[in-house]
Amino acid sequence: MSDTFDLIVVGGGPGGYVAALRASQLGMSVALVESTHFGGVCLNWGCIPTKALLRSSEIHHLLHELGTFGLSADNISFDLSKIVGRSRSIARRMGAGIAHLLKKAKVTTFDGHAKLSGRSGEAHQVAITKDGAAVATIKAPHVILATGARGRQLPGLETDGTLIWGAREAMTPKELPKRLLVIGSGAIGIEFASFYRNMGSEVTIAEVADRILIAEDPEISAAARKAFEKQGVQIITSAKVGPLNKGENEVSTTIESPAGKVELTVDRVICAVGIVGNVEDLGLEGTKVQVERTHIVTDGFCRTGEPGIYAIGDVAGAPWLAHKASHEGILCVEKIAGRSPQPLHPLNIPGCTYSRPQIASVGLSEEKAIAAGHKVKVGRFPFIANGKAVAMGETDGMVKTVFDATTGELLGAHMIGSEVTEMIQGYVITRTGELTEAELVETVFPHPTISETMHEATLAAFDGPLHI
Amino acid sequence: MSDTFDLIVVGGGPGGYVAALRASQLGMSVALVESTHFGGVCLNWGCIPTKALLRSSEIHHLLHELGTFGLSADNISFDLSKIVGRSRSIARRMGAGIAHLLKKAKVTTFDGHAKLSGRSGEAHQVAITKDGAAVATIKAPHVILATGARGRQLPGLETDGTLIWGAREAMTPKELPKRLLVIGSGAIGIEFASFYRNMGSEVTIAEVADRILIAEDPEISAAARKAFEKQGVQIITSAKVGPLNKGENEVSTTIESPAGKVELTVDRVICAVGIVGNVEDLGLEGTKVQVERTHIVTDGFCRTGEPGIYAIGDVAGAPWLAHKASHEGILCVEKIAGRSPQPLHPLNIPGCTYSRPQIASVGLSEEKAIAAGHKVKVGRFPFIANGKAVAMGETDGMVKTVFDATTGELLGAHMIGSEVTEMIQGYVITRTGELTEAELVETVFPHPTISETMHEATLAAFDGPLHI
Repeated sequence: MSDTFDLIVVGGGPGGYVAALRASQLGMSVALVESTHFGGVCLNWGCIPTKALLRSSEIHHLLHELGTFGLSADNISFDLSKIVGRSRSIARRMGAGIAHLLKKAKVTTFDGHAKLSGRSGEAHQVAITKDGAAVATIKAPHVILATGARGRQLPGLETDGTLIWGAREAMTPKELPKRLLVIGSGAIGIEFASFYRNMGSEVTIAEVADRILIAEDPEISAAARKAFEKQGVQIITSAKVGPLNKGENEVSTTIESPAGKVELTVDRVICAVGIVGNVEDLGLEGTKVQVERTHIVTDGFCRTGEPGIYAIGDVAGAPWLAHKASHEGILCVEKIAGRSPQPLHPLNIPGCTYSRPQIASVGLSEEKAIAAGHKVKVGRFPFIANGKAVAMGETDGMVKTVFDATTGELLGAHMIGSEVTEMIQGYVITRTGELTEAELVETVFPHPTISETMHEATLAAFDGPLHI
Repeated sequence: MSDTFDLIVVGGGPGGYVAALRASQLGMSVALVESTHFGGVCLNWGCIPTKALLRSSEIHHLLHELGTFGLSADNISFDLSKIVGRSRSIARRMGAGIAHLLKKAKVTTFDGHAKLSGRSGEAHQVAITKDGAAVATIKAPHVILATGARGRQLPGLETDGTLIWGAREAMTPKELPKRLLVIGSGAIGIEFASFYRNMGSEVTIAEVADRILIAEDPEISAAARKAFEKQGVQIITSAKVGPLNKGENEVSTTIESPAGKVELTVDRVICAVGIVGNVEDLGLEGTKVQVERTHIVTDGFCRTGEPGIYAIGDVAGAPWLAHKASHEGILCVEKIAGRSPQPLHPLNIPGCTYSRPQIASVGLSEEKAIAAGHKVKVGRFPFIANGKAVAMGETDGMVKTVFDATTGELLGAHMIGSEVTEMIQGYVITRTGELTEAELVETVFPHPTISETMHEATLAAFDGPLHI
């Protein structure tokens, strides 16, 4: 086997493995180095297993609403080990799928830790070790760093694997915590809060900012808060969480906020307070690769300051989203191959939270659009006025659109409610295709679908909605 | 009250009431004449109540799959009167909503049957009667006929309200038929078949054509057939249904097909063998309005042969879809108001079937695209290779795209599987905005969503998919 490749990819997550597959499609010889598991955090400890858990929990919730639908059942119960087992088995199955895809694409894979180890002529060298022992040294003119990120550990909030959980422990519970504190209300915190609430836990969310889901439009944050509170979730914003006092099998703390001081004792705490890039031990010293805080600095084509070295996905900074990583992997490889990809457009990357209700958005919030100097037209439409949502029993939701008043450009779209994660792509296509309100107004949305709210929220920003 | 309006709309279904609302937004004085109920068949006896029924039935089905998700329950049961009651109550609620919208929009509504009754100067006269008695005669320069359609009655297959059901009886069952024959496999027949199968009935579908869902791409028809057969539905295509022999409380018949002759005894029969327009008793004689078979002939702006008389929705012909009716109502009114709407583009109107699995499509099938002279590129992607679909336990499904090989135009998109009715709008926006494969490839679809299959099916038509 040759030790020289056209491309070396470091990290087999949704950034790295997609980059490797695309490079192979384009005819490159590719090496992929992964230390732990193909699919990365996303597939093994993130997106995929949590969706499996959430699905079980949503059905569990539905079981307590059967009367609404003319149905009934007794002795509603769950087996947490089976729910977790299903989630783990799906992660394993998808991981095996990635291994198969890489093999089929003739990507050479290495099991180990990769580190840049200088140049060999025009090529970069990468030294691979496993448990401290050298595995191989390989080289290529192009190296993509796709090493991902990990949960941030804050002093006093360090996860301990038993009482203070990170995402891994939170998605493999042995038993259901009766009382749960979730610190942090980004997508990850909110999804775990939703899972455990659906399963019957008493859940408190503590968020340091003055609203939950800070990445979303404030109206969506407010609608989400209202929906979660209606479900019985306690939400404390502008929260200052005091020391976590660990007991035998519970944790006590004090949470201060403008609403007052709350003494809280819970069985478990989940910390979801941000993400830091895996920038350590990559051999960046001696290169021109720049690291800022915990991410590698890149340009619109994922190039670092060092020619031939690229970074994609979480290690290249926010937004920390699998589809952003994959997209960067593709455009980075296409650029290397001499194609003409479009550079990354951050405002065309949707964000999704798979709680109940779901949340999805793309582009600018109203306030950010105004701050950016746009004169805006804003439309809103509630699910309660949509026939399909009523028929589904899913009336908690709304769509908010933000258009440029002058050009009709869709600046941002913000959705909360059933299936919005599957619907947001219509707005993403609209933005990517640089369409305006005119095309959205002209589009015939099928009836009866919840997606009609996307049409109405557009009409609402201009001539007015029809159904409210 | 004046008897003269800017516009008279005859029929308060999704074509008529939307036309009235839009006309009111544009400043017209509008009269709307409806003989039965606002919302028409769609809202009262079609789209909406069936979606409510299907939702109950899908949850009922899910109750028999709980083990898969780590859940359990005993004594799973249903109360058909409550399921039907919920469906009726949602229809009533939505109908009341339409009445409220019309009132708010200051549309003058008349309860009665409307008939053109000659001209009065420039205006058309409309005579309104209720139970044979004159209610009013009103006039306007513009009259929109939106009288809808009804189920076709074929000789020997006439619905009788007891053993042989039309849609109304099928959506208000007093008890669950143990054995059911559905004649016709368009969207309506398939949805009822799916509802009753989900509820536990033994269902046979008889279709005169050589495949079910004849309006869909043949590959989708085949996938749907496979999925329904897996659920235990018996499907007979190229079927010739013999005389229906009615017993006390059952019906016997013989179905001949290339697969052989089947003797069948069932409790109930549902006939869903097409639609005929309500063109009778409208006073069309003496006008230049042309009727072809059972629909009124119109141009791209819904104009009939008689100046000032328009027809929209089902009475103006296929496709018999509520959103087509609403869209025609809007463009017809905008044209009257001197705006510049785009004429109806039939290939940009999506079609949806809300069975399990769902089916949705827009544009041309592969065979029709080729017949129309296109050189095509075709992409396919199965749900089984999609992480979210696996996590949801919804792996039965696929997306098929048909592109023009030369221009990259998306000629058609065909979907089967979970939530495709909510997803198809992305492809409709693509077609309406005249985007090509380039924008779809560049679009960042959120991960993990089933909508990623829309991206992969596009990649599959060109450079190849990534995840299979």
